[in-house]
Amino acid sequence: MNAASGGERRADQSSLAAVKALVAEDLARVDRTINANLASSVALIPELARHVTDAGGKRIRPLVTLLGARAAGYQGNRHIGLAAVIEFIHTATLLHDDVVDNSLERRGLKSANAIWGNAASVLVGDFLFSQAFRLMVADGSLPVLRLLSNAAAVIVQGEVLQLVTTGKTTTTEDEYLEVVRAKTAQLFAAAAAVGGHLVECGPDVLAGLDRYGDQVGTAFQLTDDALDYLGESHETGKPTGGDFREGRLTLPVIIAYAQADQRERDFWDRTLGKGQQAPGDFAEACRIIRCRGTVALTQERAVVCSDNAIAALDVLPPSPSRDALADLAGLACSRKQ
Amino acid sequence: MNAASGGERRADQSSLAAVKALVAEDLARVDRTINANLASSVALIPELARHVTDAGGKRIRPLVTLLGARAAGYQGNRHIGLAAVIEFIHTATLLHDDVVDNSLERRGLKSANAIWGNAASVLVGDFLFSQAFRLMVADGSLPVLRLLSNAAAVIVQGEVLQLVTTGKTTTTEDEYLEVVRAKTAQLFAAAAAVGGHLVECGPDVLAGLDRYGDQVGTAFQLTDDALDYLGESHETGKPTGGDFREGRLTLPVIIAYAQADQRERDFWDRTLGKGQQAPGDFAEACRIIRCRGTVALTQERAVVCSDNAIAALDVLPPSPSRDALADLAGLACSRKQ
Repeated sequence: MNAASGGERRADQSSLAAVKALVAEDLARVDRTINANLASSVALIPELARHVTDAGGKRIRPLVTLLGARAAGYQGNRHIGLAAVIEFIHTATLLHDDVVDNSLERRGLKSANAIWGNAASVLVGDFLFSQAFRLMVADGSLPVLRLLSNAAAVIVQGEVLQLVTTGKTTTTEDEYLEVVRAKTAQLFAAAAAVGGHLVECGPDVLAGLDRYGDQVGTAFQLTDDALDYLGESHETGKPTGGDFREGRLTLPVIIAYAQADQRERDFWDRTLGKGQQAPGDFAEACRIIRCRGTVALTQERAVVCSDNAIAALDVLPPSPSRDALADLAGLACSRKQ
Repeated sequence: MNAASGGERRADQSSLAAVKALVAEDLARVDRTINANLASSVALIPELARHVTDAGGKRIRPLVTLLGARAAGYQGNRHIGLAAVIEFIHTATLLHDDVVDNSLERRGLKSANAIWGNAASVLVGDFLFSQAFRLMVADGSLPVLRLLSNAAAVIVQGEVLQLVTTGKTTTTEDEYLEVVRAKTAQLFAAAAAVGGHLVECGPDVLAGLDRYGDQVGTAFQLTDDALDYLGESHETGKPTGGDFREGRLTLPVIIAYAQADQRERDFWDRTLGKGQQAPGDFAEACRIIRCRGTVALTQERAVVCSDNAIAALDVLPPSPSRDALADLAGLACSRKQ
């Protein structure tokens, strides 16, 4: 049986809730581990951290760890702590990202830096990194530590790469995908591969899990990129047009710029290159993107990644967990939020 | 022989250069390791990181690791990489500190955030943390990882504690010393104790090294606090009065506030509690502190810590490295910069 076809079929009928139901008990334990490790005698730490971890977080990355571990045949409890590690790393990067981008909203709520200021967001992000680090050292596996420390280094370099290319309207599709792979897909890849390490699986299974995470992570990001030029604010849980307003060049714009006439190039250079935006510019951006069909092209790229992810699962034996990973890959590009 | 008396005598005659000379070759290897691990395809990373690691950094913390390892009898090479880890953690916290405090100068030069902006400083700080993490995982010792991950968690909590007590003029001496121990002394303690782990020494030696680092770190911080109300800008390498201008409550002020009359309390509440400063206020702050004699009291506290540090070295067998650690403790409170 080919995991790909089954996964694609199920994706349309499935939902994130259904995927989560398979590991509901484990997810609840991950939440308890997260909460226990937010405790601090300094009240600001759990207060600010909970604002981010509770605020509509979908726990997609820990879900990948839990399902990856089960699909690889792992029967123990170590995946719980490591799933919390993955979520802590993710949350820390969100906090620092919002400072870097000067974002005032996240998932429809005020961002932590908008409420508590940049200083608190930087330091609580550092706290979450340090707790992630402590938890993975407590797990005690050097291969897992190697995997996650390498992932952390790649993620941060991706963030810096994104920072230095901000406003560069001539960014190519390949350059952009390099940032996405480093900044977003790398943590998904590590989240999936952790499970393989827990059972000391062979290199082919490890490579398959890594590939799955890499492609799912890319599919999620590209779908986010597409939704930000299409979705309604109340559906995505974040205000549409955030990428545009913050001057982030994402795939719909990068493809549109490559196809642009002089007038359109001038528009992108002004609004995203120089960050000079006026009322009505986002509507104009959406209009150009609609004409060029680049949201659809971005979504097509996401579907290819999702299919790649499902195909990568072939290295695993059939199981409900493997099916759930395939469903999740389907959801990565079919979701509306 | 008691390490204390010998150490104290030598301290007056010694200099940091003389202490460093004992491990000059090792320090050069630490610098090479630091430079090799700053390499990145994203040019901003080494550029910004070098600005901080080169800018008058005295390499005190790696020096403690190198000397601690040798004094504990370690003969191998692992202390080089771990000394670089300690310096990376230190540099990362400097970068984030300057963002948190909005500092525009460090050691007489423009701070990294003043040149490259907060976003770059946050991310390059994260990069240095991630490289520290990778290097210590590469070292491969779980006890060392445990030591350093715990230290990182304590340091960050100290930073947050400092943030939430900013401007609280009624901070007690004990509360302040708790911040200093977490924020500054913890990394010195870890830097010293690493050496003990490399030779798998007994708990008494480990406790002695930890105590040495804790007390030396505190002595360095309290001396910094004192110099900032006394030193000339060109001697300390940073503009005098930085603590005052940035509203940091340090020991000279905390003791002065406890002794203050109503007029002085009003002065501190306005300038440091509310951060409302006018030209001439720093001169007035120095005048009050001179009258109250609290710089001298702070320096006395530093001398006690330095003596404690030297006494803690008694658990180690006599050696040139142990003597150099004692000299360093003497320098912590006798230095003019």
